[in-house]
Amino acid sequence: MTIDSITEAGLEWLATGTGVLGSGGGGRPRIGRLRLQTLLDDDQYPDEIEVIPPEDLDPDATITSVGKIGAPSIGSEKLPKGDEELRALRALERGGDCSVDALIPGEIGGANSFAPLIVSLLTGLPVVDADAMGRALPKLQMDTFFINGHPVNCAVITDEKGNTIVYEDIDLPERFESLVRATTVELGGTAAYAYPILEGTFVKEYSVHHTLSLCHDLGRRIHEARAANEDPTEAVCDVTGGRRLFSGKVMDIKRRHDEGFTTGDVRIDEMEGDRTLVISFQNEFLHAELDGTTVATVPDLISLLDETTAEPILVDDVQFGQRVDVVGIPAPDLLTTDEALSVVGPEAFGYDHGYEPLGTSCIGGERSGSGGV
Amino acid sequence: MTIDSITEAGLEWLATGTGVLGSGGGGRPRIGRLRLQTLLDDDQYPDEIEVIPPEDLDPDATITSVGKIGAPSIGSEKLPKGDEELRALRALERGGDCSVDALIPGEIGGANSFAPLIVSLLTGLPVVDADAMGRALPKLQMDTFFINGHPVNCAVITDEKGNTIVYEDIDLPERFESLVRATTVELGGTAAYAYPILEGTFVKEYSVHHTLSLCHDLGRRIHEARAANEDPTEAVCDVTGGRRLFSGKVMDIKRRHDEGFTTGDVRIDEMEGDRTLVISFQNEFLHAELDGTTVATVPDLISLLDETTAEPILVDDVQFGQRVDVVGIPAPDLLTTDEALSVVGPEAFGYDHGYEPLGTSCIGGERSGSGGV
Repeated sequence: MTIDSITEAGLEWLATGTGVLGSGGGGRPRIGRLRLQTLLDDDQYPDEIEVIPPEDLDPDATITSVGKIGAPSIGSEKLPKGDEELRALRALERGGDCSVDALIPGEIGGANSFAPLIVSLLTGLPVVDADAMGRALPKLQMDTFFINGHPVNCAVITDEKGNTIVYEDIDLPERFESLVRATTVELGGTAAYAYPILEGTFVKEYSVHHTLSLCHDLGRRIHEARAANEDPTEAVCDVTGGRRLFSGKVMDIKRRHDEGFTTGDVRIDEMEGDRTLVISFQNEFLHAELDGTTVATVPDLISLLDETTAEPILVDDVQFGQRVDVVGIPAPDLLTTDEALSVVGPEAFGYDHGYEPLGTSCIGGERSGSGGV
Repeated sequence: MTIDSITEAGLEWLATGTGVLGSGGGGRPRIGRLRLQTLLDDDQYPDEIEVIPPEDLDPDATITSVGKIGAPSIGSEKLPKGDEELRALRALERGGDCSVDALIPGEIGGANSFAPLIVSLLTGLPVVDADAMGRALPKLQMDTFFINGHPVNCAVITDEKGNTIVYEDIDLPERFESLVRATTVELGGTAAYAYPILEGTFVKEYSVHHTLSLCHDLGRRIHEARAANEDPTEAVCDVTGGRRLFSGKVMDIKRRHDEGFTTGDVRIDEMEGDRTLVISFQNEFLHAELDGTTVATVPDLISLLDETTAEPILVDDVQFGQRVDVVGIPAPDLLTTDEALSVVGPEAFGYDHGYEPLGTSCIGGERSGSGGV
């Protein structure tokens, strides 16, 4: 089931659904969601956000992504002014001498799916029902555009004080990441972005399709399951093609902040048994090991869900004593090509083994009623 | 004596003169000078560089400075492509939507006085006989434009690979410094710059005047003194209003590279006596202590000269056994105001005492034959 607009009613569903695909990262959607709600309630702005399926995109359209970069935990404390992404967009149009026709989330997981919706209301630009990760991932080079050879032609970073930094003709996505990361640290740990300048044809081919619809659907199904006293974790597995890897209680969490990332690991013990799952993370959950045996790795998604409500739990919110379900969700096909695995596979994160897929993905598929009502 | 052009004959003088005002930093002019010589010899380009005195500047003219940033020792190994500053200038004109009428050195000391001369030959733009430091200093906020309240309206950093980063509306010069420093480290330790966008009226009031002429004159006088078997260190003192602080032999040098700077100290022992001078540096010599008593500090200039030739010795070139004269030169008036001292005084560099001036400066004065023939 695909959507052609997002209204106030859908925000709650989207927040839950993008949280699941955030794999513990992507930032808290709370602030973005409040801002969106305020705009939707304001008569100056439309009361729905136009969503266009990637298959309907004009091949010549100019598209960019807008969102936030930085450690999610800092983003919760360093409040935005509210116009950062819009200013980034306008600076990108000036710097790249272009006029943007549509927006796309850089990553669908977490808060970064809300940023384009806000800018859409402020500008009237539609949002493409797709994104460049099909989840959240910690580094800028890890998107399907750069993985598939798109140049870093133009990019903008802005902060709440009006500081604006424009990147032009950056030779490597990895350098773009290190440049922007260093700049973000100097700006206090978080910043807003707009990048790159994309053509419709490229977005049609190399974006992960229908992920806004997927998150909308996923969130709705979770909320419906809760209301019907059914198991909402089952709904997550049903909609995403995922599987319950483990259930237990959080026994330990190690979290540290360095070089703009939140890294560490969490230990979860079985309640009626003596098995232990350890999940390591860098902004997002990356790798799960059950009694020393790997059971899921990037680029497959690992999500921590509240055992009762299936509400996703962010890396920053994991605490001792939480009862959780751990779900593994097969990564979108665009993240499992050889080119992609060299950038987002386990070895790219320093693990000493290759990628063993969880199964066939439902992310980026046709959404022809898959898991729908 | 002021100059209205620079020809091939003057390059040697300029290299020596800017080396003295570089206070041990500002970079080696060797590469820039070779490039300049090549351009002057090439029929495609003019055979002299037009220099205009600041008093003749059109008040409405648009002016910017171009040069290099980074640790001087890295600049000697990471060779430039040659068009970095020109690309920075063009990106500044695009980003700032302006057309530059004249160039000005950001600092007169060392290699950064050569960069505008090269861009002048490539573009036909004249170079203003002035600069924004009257010497070399290690941080971007330490120039007379920012000290006197000029905004960081637009700035560009480029590297030899074509990477281009544009800074717009940066709220504080100190943030500009930290942003650019972090970016320069990510680009490999050195980069080229163009910034800010200045108006003629501002440059007339807040630049250090006639410093290209001063360096030209200073270099010529040193070379003439060598040829005449006179003491060239005397010529330095005569032209700059400086004074010989110490003579001796370099006994020890501690140099380290961190966060994009070269820092450390050098110990010099008297040959016929037992006094010791210790000079500490951060890219430039900052502070000289004779047997524990401060004898010169920033913003006054401290220059190490070869005892025989008065050829200036850079921080990077100091070695055990060198016989040297140490000269202290009074800082230009624009660096000794209260506003300036809060940015470039000893306390701004972490020394626990105030500024005690060496005397009245000849840098930035009228150059009405001062020290001339």
